[in-house]
Amino acid sequence: MADGLKPRGEEPTKSASRTTATNSGRSFETRPAGAPQDEIGRMPHRPAREDYRWDGVEMRPYKEDERALYKAITRQVLFSDPAMAGELRYFEVAPGGFSTLERHEHMHGVLILRGRGHCLVGDEVKSLDTHDLVTVPPMAWHQFRASKGEPLGFLCMVNAQRDKPQLPTADDVARLRRTPAIAAFFDDKS
Amino acid sequence: MADGLKPRGEEPTKSASRTTATNSGRSFETRPAGAPQDEIGRMPHRPAREDYRWDGVEMRPYKEDERALYKAITRQVLFSDPAMAGELRYFEVAPGGFSTLERHEHMHGVLILRGRGHCLVGDEVKSLDTHDLVTVPPMAWHQFRASKGEPLGFLCMVNAQRDKPQLPTADDVARLRRTPAIAAFFDDKS
Repeated sequence: MADGLKPRGEEPTKSASRTTATNSGRSFETRPAGAPQDEIGRMPHRPAREDYRWDGVEMRPYKEDERALYKAITRQVLFSDPAMAGELRYFEVAPGGFSTLERHEHMHGVLILRGRGHCLVGDEVKSLDTHDLVTVPPMAWHQFRASKGEPLGFLCMVNAQRDKPQLPTADDVARLRRTPAIAAFFDDKS
Repeated sequence: MADGLKPRGEEPTKSASRTTATNSGRSFETRPAGAPQDEIGRMPHRPAREDYRWDGVEMRPYKEDERALYKAITRQVLFSDPAMAGELRYFEVAPGGFSTLERHEHMHGVLILRGRGHCLVGDEVKSLDTHDLVTVPPMAWHQFRASKGEPLGFLCMVNAQRDKPQLPTADDVARLRRTPAIAAFFDDKS
């Protein structure tokens, strides 16, 4: 077991060093400095509260990025422990909101817990419903959008040790927009 | 990223070598030999089907252990990939059923996806409702039981590389039963 343990945190890799002045913003998913919840996370039972909140789980409030990289999304870290190689987070996107458009070497395993919406993964746009599974492979551009009528909430499993997300350049976005379904997705017209 | 990769599988550790003739049975959670689903698991979108099944996800059917180590439980592996340090599985316990009573060095991060029930974690019995979180620390005896009226379905995040579960001896069970709440839990009277 011991050799499976790794320190947590985001260690930039060579591939992540691409991040430059034009896309050096912080992803919504970037971990805030120094917010370990190990004590609380080892409580054997944390009851669900109303509206997809949990006892003892801190919620990062809704906010927007001035460059429209993300909008109206919250994050709650459900499981994060030095003895666990993965982390499980719950993200919730308000109606009309969206997660950060980004890519990275690490993968995401996503389960839609609440609501409906669409996602971009690589060059595909998919319609999402509750309990659907989404796999984000290494270096695939990805973004999640809520439907207009209700929040989109999803669980996301991720490696505790992972590279930093890369944000798109204007060129990246222009190239993605050449696919009509992706342009419609970006314009919230999926 | 590369140094975060580990081969998957269950590597027995020293602590797991305790498993002896009296408790050498296989836990329900023990991975069946050779059932990789990597190709399917990398499909970007796997829609949810009816009744907590998923496209492209194999279900291990309900069965019982003759020693009453588990009863009426199914497993579906939702995410398991060489690039992911964790795995996400979905277990479902039929009304009156229960998961294997076991312990191990690796941790479980559990989210109740469906229904209600009770769990034993260490020396505590907890009542569970939908979306509750359960953390199973290293070497804590644990077991999940469905309520009588409906199935109990739960997501379980686990390290891809992990030690083998230990099953209880008769002495272990007798010692646990000394706590009245645990005896009631074993007798399905919580």
